Amino acid sequence: VRAAMAGWARAVRGLLLDVSGVLYDSGADGGVPIAGSAEAVRRIKASGLKLRFCTNETQATREKFVKKLQGLGFDISVAEVTAPAPAACSILKERGLRPHLLVHNDLLPEFAEIDKTNPNCVVIGDAAENFTYANLNEAFRVLIGMEKPVLISLGKGRYYKETDGLKLDVGAYMKALEYACDVQAEVVGKPSKRFFESALAEMGLPPEQ
Amino acid sequence: VRAAMAGWARAVRGLLLDVSGVLYDSGADGGVPIAGSAEAVRRIKASGLKLRFCTNETQATREKFVKKLQGLGFDISVAEVTAPAPAACSILKERGLRPHLLVHNDLLPEFAEIDKTNPNCVVIGDAAENFTYANLNEAFRVLIGMEKPVLISLGKGRYYKETDGLKLDVGAYMKALEYACDVQAEVVGKPSKRFFESALAEMGLPPEQ
Repeated sequence: VRAAMAGWARAVRGLLLDVSGVLYDSGADGGVPIAGSAEAVRRIKASGLKLRFCTNETQATREKFVKKLQGLGFDISVAEVTAPAPAACSILKERGLRPHLLVHNDLLPEFAEIDKTNPNCVVIGDAAENFTYANLNEAFRVLIGMEKPVLISLGKGRYYKETDGLKLDVGAYMKALEYACDVQAEVVGKPSKRFFESALAEMGLPPEQ
Repeated sequence: VRAAMAGWARAVRGLLLDVSGVLYDSGADGGVPIAGSAEAVRRIKASGLKLRFCTNETQATREKFVKKLQGLGFDISVAEVTAPAPAACSILKERGLRPHLLVHNDLLPEFAEIDKTNPNCVVIGDAAENFTYANLNEAFRVLIGMEKPVLISLGKGRYYKETDGLKLDVGAYMKALEYACDVQAEVVGKPSKRFFESALAEMGLPPEQ
């Protein structure tokens, strides 16, 4: 086993790191770093390995997310982060899709460059307080009004924990819209294969490395 | 065909009638009767056939629902109505279940006699404006906190139309909770077999009549 591991380690030229729950524990106060993780990031970078941070964070722009992590002591920059919203933006551009957005207010700047007039798809993220009865009905009406509804979901998490308790995640609301419109959402973000592939492409490495 | 129909008609001793969309069209103003339907109800009753009204209405008590239909000119009484909430109440009593309710305020009186302390199940109806982010998280926490979550849904409709547009129905929110908790809801109301059977039992007739 050790020989196989050593062989594997020699082939590896880059790492994808999860963030929430791996580098830090989130919370209403901004969260706390997990012991040793900031040092681990420094050592990976010093070793010459390529590194990308791969997150399903959709409650904030990468800028805000990175600023928080820098404040917790991490050596991280916006250019090193792969996140669902920018991945969705590249899909929207590629396919000429104009989204109706049901996302967190703090995520809106990620879609600033995207044409949102006369929507021909719905993009749903972890909208949190924006998951109101009115907003869900509105997103539903946009979808059901399409000849062939296109629903893009920034993740498919079931729920997550915050300091004040468990919260339903984007996956639950995605299922509600899927059922109402009899469609299947296209999931951007982990564990979608395309999401990991785009992170690798950004590192310039093939999967086996 | 005519002979077969005549034979079938001779065997029939009772009828189950749908209400919304059959006897009247609903709307914010209370709705309008469908032409000829009030007269049809009178003729069925005059013919000596047994009659029950079978509805998936979960936004109001039977009392309120019947009062509205009487106002529209229908010969109908509370004792003639089979609806999901009372059907759910008989299941709750039978199984010793104490519900956490996520339902419309106007439906609450139907559950007045039910013990709701220390809940061991969740009952979801078309809660409309009560489908808030906070209320959905609360219902979810009650469910996920159970060793074996029990979710009872007063219907599984996808959506319906009101005068101000389409609205997501209880089925969509049921799917959200099902996914988040990895459970399957027990659906009370049409098209559940048990629901129709209880309507027949209330009429005192077997299915073939």
